[in-house]
Amino acid sequence: MKKNIKKEILALAGPDLLLVEQALEANLTPNLDLVRQVAGHLLFAGGKRLRPLLMIHAARMCGFQTGQEIEFSTIFEYLHAATLLHDDVVDGSDTRRGKPCAHTLWDAATVVLTGDFLLATALVIAAKTKSPRVIEVIAQITADMSQGEILQMEKKGNPDLSEEEYNEIIECKTAVLIQGACRTGAIVAGVDENQETALKNYGWHLGMAFQMADDLLDYTATADQLGKNPGADMREGKLTLPLIYSLEKADALEREWILAAMARPQFDQEEFESLKTRLIRLGGIEYINKRALAHVQSARAALDIFPQSPSKYLLELIADYSILRKV
Amino acid sequence: MKKNIKKEILALAGPDLLLVEQALEANLTPNLDLVRQVAGHLLFAGGKRLRPLLMIHAARMCGFQTGQEIEFSTIFEYLHAATLLHDDVVDGSDTRRGKPCAHTLWDAATVVLTGDFLLATALVIAAKTKSPRVIEVIAQITADMSQGEILQMEKKGNPDLSEEEYNEIIECKTAVLIQGACRTGAIVAGVDENQETALKNYGWHLGMAFQMADDLLDYTATADQLGKNPGADMREGKLTLPLIYSLEKADALEREWILAAMARPQFDQEEFESLKTRLIRLGGIEYINKRALAHVQSARAALDIFPQSPSKYLLELIADYSILRKV
Repeated sequence: MKKNIKKEILALAGPDLLLVEQALEANLTPNLDLVRQVAGHLLFAGGKRLRPLLMIHAARMCGFQTGQEIEFSTIFEYLHAATLLHDDVVDGSDTRRGKPCAHTLWDAATVVLTGDFLLATALVIAAKTKSPRVIEVIAQITADMSQGEILQMEKKGNPDLSEEEYNEIIECKTAVLIQGACRTGAIVAGVDENQETALKNYGWHLGMAFQMADDLLDYTATADQLGKNPGADMREGKLTLPLIYSLEKADALEREWILAAMARPQFDQEEFESLKTRLIRLGGIEYINKRALAHVQSARAALDIFPQSPSKYLLELIADYSILRKV
Repeated sequence: MKKNIKKEILALAGPDLLLVEQALEANLTPNLDLVRQVAGHLLFAGGKRLRPLLMIHAARMCGFQTGQEIEFSTIFEYLHAATLLHDDVVDGSDTRRGKPCAHTLWDAATVVLTGDFLLATALVIAAKTKSPRVIEVIAQITADMSQGEILQMEKKGNPDLSEEEYNEIIECKTAVLIQGACRTGAIVAGVDENQETALKNYGWHLGMAFQMADDLLDYTATADQLGKNPGADMREGKLTLPLIYSLEKADALEREWILAAMARPQFDQEEFESLKTRLIRLGGIEYINKRALAHVQSARAALDIFPQSPSKYLLELIADYSILRKV
């Protein structure tokens, strides 16, 4: 089933994905080779182009299919790449998408400035929509994302992070951008408020599900699947829902064991497996699965007001896939 | 004469400056106290608000005086503050405007993300202009500035930096933003292409003069005047025009002395005075003065097509002041 969904999405999206790649390449025109290298390192490391796909098919589902949706969709991949570059510097992670992080190959200053350049590139394309509302949405996304990152940083290592705070963090760091891509599709298509709201809701729930699946994978996937070591979040002091829920349910002894494990600078495979066993027993793994599934269902339900179409079908598949994927 | 110009500018601009301060404060509405602290540290450290003033009076000279010009003008102070935060991280400087740099008080990650937030705040206000052309100008400014910073970084410590490369760097890092502020004033006022071009030219020449004056002050001002130690550029490996010109004119022996001085990690006051004496003798100080003055004259000349008005008079005063100021 999993494999089939992925295959079906790729079959339906394939031709557009090629056009998106070309547009990403064509619009990345810095005057400096260094910028192209640093930006290209991440941008062409085999991302899924989820955000462009969402914008393209949100627009088409709303009746906008002028061809411009391809170029406009790159806004969201550039924005995504810009934030990844800044986040990698902020987090100090070593690998991303199975490749060394940019800041381990270039100095932090170069990476920060290249992130700024990618953000600027996104804006240059956003200006081409000539839609003040698109600009407004994008401006708000960038404001929310930077605040989400700071909030996450402030809360790093805090074992008392609540589910509510966790939701706020993943909303800012992931959901607002995915939501913005879907909403922008609606805006460029010029649909009514109802339809725009439906796509806003679809995007928000999808984004929440997507990040929860990511946070789950950090516990359940293998290093090969992730392109980085599992357990990275915890090692960086980032509490995600499986841990938050489990800490809440744990008795004093178990809580102590988990907090001690988190505090250890070195954390071997055996300890990690032992932690996972506890998260399963305490229900943290099942709980995030349940929450993510609920978001997928809400995302699908939000699309109900739209008549059936190939693009709607693809958006539904993407919702299903968001929690089934292995990477 | 110097004192009178500053006084006259402040007298003419004073009431608007108060409104700009209020608008800067009112629009800075992060959800997080930390962001407000970091952003406020730089933003309310007594900047001159040159860029907002330029936008306001460019707009008014073009007949736009709805009151909105105050809020719109803050775009350029937020953009300026955002780039200063990123630059301070990139440069690793210790003080700015006489205060410790943000990254010496908070970690680099917080400062980078606060810079992102200020950029986002600028965009949120830019979206309020509802002008795709304003967005286009601002997007291009951010692209140019990030590339300018990377270029400057790439060229750091290179003793063969040419005057042409220097001009490119200061254009990107300073002139495009000042130019953008002036141009945006013209765009919101909806003037014809001739007048917009005139304000583009005014802004460009003013920006070049302004940065040249800055680079000169790094050699000629006192630590008290600068709010940081003079000679900082050279110590950071940044070649500016006085040094570039002097190296070109120097004989082999003198060139060797200068390069050796630049390469020393510690550089005392006496050596710095000795370097200054050489720059004066070789004509580097006089040359940048001459170039800056030529830009001021071009800036003033660009305004010729506008009829006399209080705002035009103020823009002329600012051009004069750009090279007379001591801080």
